[in-house]
Amino acid sequence: MQRHFDEELADLNKEILRMGGLTEESILRSVEALKVRSADQARQVITEDKQIDEMELAIDEKCLDLLALHQPMAIDLRFITMTMKICTDLERIADLAVDIAQRVLEIADKPQLKPLIDIPKLATLAQSMVKEAIDAFVRRDVELAKKIILRDTEADNLRNLVQSELISDYIAKDSATAPRAVALLLVARHLERICDHTTNIAEDVIFMVEGKVVKHHLDTLKESK
Amino acid sequence: MQRHFDEELADLNKEILRMGGLTEESILRSVEALKVRSADQARQVITEDKQIDEMELAIDEKCLDLLALHQPMAIDLRFITMTMKICTDLERIADLAVDIAQRVLEIADKPQLKPLIDIPKLATLAQSMVKEAIDAFVRRDVELAKKIILRDTEADNLRNLVQSELISDYIAKDSATAPRAVALLLVARHLERICDHTTNIAEDVIFMVEGKVVKHHLDTLKESK
Repeated sequence: MQRHFDEELADLNKEILRMGGLTEESILRSVEALKVRSADQARQVITEDKQIDEMELAIDEKCLDLLALHQPMAIDLRFITMTMKICTDLERIADLAVDIAQRVLEIADKPQLKPLIDIPKLATLAQSMVKEAIDAFVRRDVELAKKIILRDTEADNLRNLVQSELISDYIAKDSATAPRAVALLLVARHLERICDHTTNIAEDVIFMVEGKVVKHHLDTLKESK
Repeated sequence: MQRHFDEELADLNKEILRMGGLTEESILRSVEALKVRSADQARQVITEDKQIDEMELAIDEKCLDLLALHQPMAIDLRFITMTMKICTDLERIADLAVDIAQRVLEIADKPQLKPLIDIPKLATLAQSMVKEAIDAFVRRDVELAKKIILRDTEADNLRNLVQSELISDYIAKDSATAPRAVALLLVARHLERICDHTTNIAEDVIFMVEGKVVKHHLDTLKESK
């Protein structure tokens, strides 16, 4: 029984890893679609999101089955319940890639606003935070999870920077380009929310491993550095 | 043992009801702060969010204890795991009220943009959807949950309406008022995301009661009407 249960937990781990991989790819593609202004690539992100939705349902179902059949305790119980939370976060991250793709569709046929400012930098940060969050989960790596949580401020700052530049240089200056600048501003917000979700995942990883809550207690984490 | 367990489940119900009440209040206050442009009221929403954060942690902990101690099956298992998901949604709804309050702080010292367009209408919809989602949860009311899911399109449409009006009447016309219009556009998006979260809650309620997944299968729901 225990051997079988351990195998099922290992499978769950693999499924989260696979779902995380697809989610990362979705972000990558939506940002690529933005850079090259490709409506086709944007539509592909939207279509393929269905697969990630289905994975969330499958993982949830598997978790409930494991809870009902094996009535796990301690770390196994935390692993399964946190997996349920983490797959919701991954699904919402993928939804945000869809949101980015939708912004691309809104602006793909209009001339490019001069630069994308720091949006590519924010996108790279978001992608690497998603990758690290999945790594922290599958490797039960509390130190990496803590690093992710501390990087969230970096995302906030970058988002604020992009937003102020778009407002002062375009939105408050040139009515003709302002709607396109609004679309980019929303992209920056979508990316920053992706980073927020990776923070949720990292908090759940720490709770899963240590049984200790860091959520809503960022100060404690900073002090313990 | 069963009697005690039933009492604990009833307590959990009450705690979600209380958390839902506080969350509704937070939305109400943030929108009121926007209407009267009160930075003080906005700051109050931000400060009091801490209480809702703490409730999420307390409910999560209680759920894990119940899972470990009573190893529930079937509907009880679904009730406890869905409670964990629902309290995350409530906490994020409260965070969106904080986001609205932050937009209020950005614009409170500037002259009001003529109308708030349909933002108050969208706010009323969001509040009533949150109230109904909590009701559906505590009364195990699948029909009400289905209604909530179908109302989500209403929220999307209202948000789109507000957004197009703000872009065409302010952002693309008048650079001086454009930054304020962007803040309102974000408020509309925050409100619409609150509605999205109520849809998540409604889906979890249906799964909890019927053990049937409606998430990501809106078409099925529409056909069954």
